[in-house]
Amino acid sequence: MTSKQKHLLSMQELSVERITEILTTAESFKEVSGREIKKVPALRGKTVVNLFYEPSTRTRTSFELAAKRLSADVVNIAPGSSSATKGESLIDTARNIEAMKTDILVVRHSMAGAPALLARRLSCSVINAGDGSHEHPTQALLDLYTIKEKKGRIDGLTVVIAGDLLHSRVARSNLYGLVAMGAKVRLAGPGTMLPPLMGTWIDAAPGQVERFTDLDKAIDGADVIMMLRLQTERQSGSFFPSVKEYARLYGLNGERVAKANPDVLIMHPGPINRGVEIAPEVADGLSSVILEQVTNGVAIRMAVLYLLSGGAST
Amino acid sequence: MTSKQKHLLSMQELSVERITEILTTAESFKEVSGREIKKVPALRGKTVVNLFYEPSTRTRTSFELAAKRLSADVVNIAPGSSSATKGESLIDTARNIEAMKTDILVVRHSMAGAPALLARRLSCSVINAGDGSHEHPTQALLDLYTIKEKKGRIDGLTVVIAGDLLHSRVARSNLYGLVAMGAKVRLAGPGTMLPPLMGTWIDAAPGQVERFTDLDKAIDGADVIMMLRLQTERQSGSFFPSVKEYARLYGLNGERVAKANPDVLIMHPGPINRGVEIAPEVADGLSSVILEQVTNGVAIRMAVLYLLSGGAST
Amino acid sequence: MTSKQKHLLSMQELSVERITEILTTAESFKEVSGREIKKVPALRGKTVVNLFYEPSTRTRTSFELAAKRLSADVVNIAPGSSSATKGESLIDTARNIEAMKTDILVVRHSMAGAPALLARRLSCSVINAGDGSHEHPTQALLDLYTIKEKKGRIDGLTVVIAGDLLHSRVARSNLYGLVAMGAKVRLAGPGTMLPPLMGTWIDAAPGQVERFTDLDKAIDGADVIMMLRLQTERQSGSFFPSVKEYARLYGLNGERVAKANPDVLIMHPGPINRGVEIAPEVADGLSSVILEQVTNGVAIRMAVLYLLSGGAST
Repeated sequence: MTSKQKHLLSMQELSVERITEILTTAESFKEVSGREIKKVPALRGKTVVNLFYEPSTRTRTSFELAAKRLSADVVNIAPGSSSATKGESLIDTARNIEAMKTDILVVRHSMAGAPALLARRLSCSVINAGDGSHEHPTQALLDLYTIKEKKGRIDGLTVVIAGDLLHSRVARSNLYGLVAMGAKVRLAGPGTMLPPLMGTWIDAAPGQVERFTDLDKAIDGADVIMMLRLQTERQSGSFFPSVKEYARLYGLNGERVAKANPDVLIMHPGPINRGVEIAPEVADGLSSVILEQVTNGVAIRMAVLYLLSGGAST
Repeated sequence: MTSKQKHLLSMQELSVERITEILTTAESFKEVSGREIKKVPALRGKTVVNLFYEPSTRTRTSFELAAKRLSADVVNIAPGSSSATKGESLIDTARNIEAMKTDILVVRHSMAGAPALLARRLSCSVINAGDGSHEHPTQALLDLYTIKEKKGRIDGLTVVIAGDLLHSRVARSNLYGLVAMGAKVRLAGPGTMLPPLMGTWIDAAPGQVERFTDLDKAIDGADVIMMLRLQTERQSGSFFPSVKEYARLYGLNGERVAKANPDVLIMHPGPINRGVEIAPEVADGLSSVILEQVTNGVAIRMAVLYLLSGGAST
Repeated sequence: MTSKQKHLLSMQELSVERITEILTTAESFKEVSGREIKKVPALRGKTVVNLFYEPSTRTRTSFELAAKRLSADVVNIAPGSSSATKGESLIDTARNIEAMKTDILVVRHSMAGAPALLARRLSCSVINAGDGSHEHPTQALLDLYTIKEKKGRIDGLTVVIAGDLLHSRVARSNLYGLVAMGAKVRLAGPGTMLPPLMGTWIDAAPGQVERFTDLDKAIDGADVIMMLRLQTERQSGSFFPSVKEYARLYGLNGERVAKANPDVLIMHPGPINRGVEIAPEVADGLSSVILEQVTNGVAIRMAVLYLLSGGAST
């Protein structure tokens, strides 16, 4: 994210300095979205293309609003119904979009590694807006921003990430980011949904990342609880007996929240399944910062678009 | 529509003063769309989101152009293919959009009452762009504008609304608006398509609203004839023997128009079914103001967006 | 394309003077897309509507970016899911869009002649963005621009157009444009895919247009080779035994390119079918200008939008 870095592909590749630079820059852009006139000319005359192979109301809208509030020209492309059906490859589609003098290409794709592949072949900037079960870096950045804003720090906090960790790009990106920023991370979920080989692929200090199959034990003393959406559309097998069973064992309800620290933050990347992984009274409760995550998402994306366009950090 | 009113949910809730304020404000915005440069900075830096659960080329485009000509940032969301399929509730989807600092949410939904539900739960402005068989207030406002522009008044005119009154949100909204503005309204259609309990839910003067099953009698002496689209997609049962039969009994042709006053206005909210509820020679005839309704629709929506954003009435 | 011409419907109707005017105007707009701030206020306050009945990532995006870089307000409409399903006719849909004070309507339709039909019925400008197997004039203009830019001239060059000529609107438009600009055109493809009655509908000099069923003979001494996409979606019958057979006889590979002039240009309107009508080493080779065609497409569309809006030629 220095002037040398032109892409945002994963949290794994970001240094603490770069994460901090993005979070700091987002602060000033959050202020912009709070103004009467939510618009700055920073990216006037720049072209941002949202290339979404998977539908996503929230992420696409967040990037679109971020780009528009920076005065960029934005085009949305959902290739499902067009070039893809004409047999064109991902790379050819992207190279065509780049040839129209696109400055930043925001890509969501069901295939892990698709944005990285494009970054190697294109000369414009590429932002990963979610690739398969791999990463979703702007989600992790907005989560880090929200924690830091509410807690004043990330370092030393105990953060639970709970749910379907195996299929969650949000969990992977947050794991990298939280470990880099010095948090202790507790991964909680059914044994079938916990990623294998933990510790071999994360550069964490001993004991910094722990695995739990008992959600209540994981929550005990937690500062932050991030619930993951149960993504039935990404599961290739049977990972738990029933949704009811899952909700009973791994759903976050008021009784469970009481076991965390009193000032615990409840987070969720959305869209939420009320009554499944999170009870309504928790999602809408005083500890929940779920909607503030959404607000901060626009600020983070403005910061990323701005820095990748060569803007100076603030 | 005063500074206290931040939503536009129905014609039923609008006073004569507010309707008049909107119509008057629309006049100056109609002038804007007639300029060489169709753009004013009134909503620069404001965010308008079109959330359309039902597709609608005409209404969505009209709101989008209205917002763009006011210099707002506009985002279109058609949730059918995204969050809705991920099981998110309407309220959660809307609260997420609001959390991105949306100023005005324009909602179309198949469920009557959906925009009102959102207005109670959101702090941004909500505009009803059509909710089930309930209301479509901006359509009624543009119809009132068109009548006033052409006739110089609404008070005392005899207006026929003909067709499938039972399923028509356009008819309901116009009925409220026309009655409030002092017109006499004749509802004409097959008995199975006339709303029941007329007079109990409309605050009309005795004789101000009449029901007709004979279209020819309804048209006799009319100043305005509003034809409704035969909406087969909203009908849950069989309301008439055949389309051919319906066209013969309730279609507007030149012979029928001749029974109205010589300077009668022919209106239709579109899209029209040529040869069904309206004959081509009538739709394209000298009395037709169907396309002027469309032109006025942009002006009315500019006025509503402007007033809900806190703009002073003109 | 003089002030008297308000539509762009086909290459067949364009004079050499008009083609030259568009190509010259595009030069200055190509420079705009190369700037740090890719934006000029030429069409500020104008409304451009992309009405695409067929999906097209590349052409729609190109028009959208062209309009946005000219500061126009742009609205995309894909009527497939909306008015069309409500039974509205093409003309009624377009007249409604026009009634919203649209300045330029860009139309793609599966029916040959649809844009011309609309041009006769509307008072706004109409641009044909591809109509069935008829024409795709902005594609031909960007192809002419690319040839002229690379070769310094069009007159006297030998240009091969190869592939499914019968179904290709790109081929038809290029044929008209190339003949008008003085190129020699060789049409190459299976006998079943060569248009019949050649010479009766093209106003070409004797020998200016030739037909080949042997691609190798057509390529011999060529200055430009335009490969066409194999459009299986437009074929109503069986025109060749198999894709493999087609690729062997009519696919462009390195061996075939060697038979052309050393400085031959390889062109393709995209999306390409790698390994079918064009080998990857050719598509990505040094002679290929396929992506430069895409870049020039935005410049051409900016020029056309500008000139149709009454802009002075440069």
